[in-house]
Amino acid sequence: MSLVFSSITINTGQLQNMLVFYSRIGFKFQMVKVDKGSEVYRAVHDGVEFSLYSVPNALKSKVPSVQLGFQITELEKTVQDLAKIPGTLLILDPTDLPEGMKAIILDPDGHSVELCQK
Amino acid sequence: MSLVFSSITINTGQLQNMLVFYSRIGFKFQMVKVDKGSEVYRAVHDGVEFSLYSVPNALKSKVPSVQLGFQITELEKTVQDLAKIPGTLLILDPTDLPEGMKAIILDPDGHSVELCQK
Repeated sequence: MSLVFSSITINTGQLQNMLVFYSRIGFKFQMVKVDKGSEVYRAVHDGVEFSLYSVPNALKSKVPSVQLGFQITELEKTVQDLAKIPGTLLILDPTDLPEGMKAIILDPDGHSVELCQK
Repeated sequence: MSLVFSSITINTGQLQNMLVFYSRIGFKFQMVKVDKGSEVYRAVHDGVEFSLYSVPNALKSKVPSVQLGFQITELEKTVQDLAKIPGTLLILDPTDLPEGMKAIILDPDGHSVELCQK
C-alpha cells in the first residue's frame, strides 16, 4: 500500500483575498477553466496541487475544520504582509521556539495557517 | 522564497470514524499527548504531518470547505472498505479515466476525498 498526497482544494467565497494570501506565502497560481464558469486557481508545488475554487455563495465558517502548515523563508516579512490582507487575523506573532521561528495567522476564510522557518 | 507543505490538521467531532477512514487510506497514526486532555492523532507521511484533532463539540459542516486528494494503490478494494465506514458517502465509483482510475468519497466529516490510482 503506497500513499501520496496529491491535492488540497479550498472552496472560498472570497477568491481574490484568498489568492493574494496564498500567493504571498509562495504559491504560483494559474487560472484553470472549468465547465460551469466557476473560477479555479491552481498551483502545483512539490507534486501537490493546491487549488482555490470560487464558490459564490460559500459561507465563511465560524470554525473552519482544517488547519494548514507551511515551512517558508522570510517569515517575519511574509507575516507582516499577510496581516495586511483583508479578513486575516494574526494569532501568534513570529516567535522563536526551539523548533524554529513560528507564526499563526487566520487566512481570509478563517483557516488557521501555521508558518515556520527553520 | 521557498515553500514546503508541512502539515494538515482536521478538527473532528467523530475521531474514531475519521481515524478508521484515514488509516484505511494508508496513514499510520500515533496518539500525541496534548496539554488540555484533547486527543490528537498524527501521521507523518512524505514529510507532511497529517493530524486528526478531537474537538468534542465540533459541528459537522454541511459544506466542508476543503477537499483532499491522495494517490494510492489497491483503489477498488480500498474504496469498498471505506464505503462501509459510518458517515461516508461514495460519490464516484472507481472509474477508469484517461489519467488513471479515480473515485470520490465523502469522509465521515463530509470532506470530499479524491482517490487516484495511476
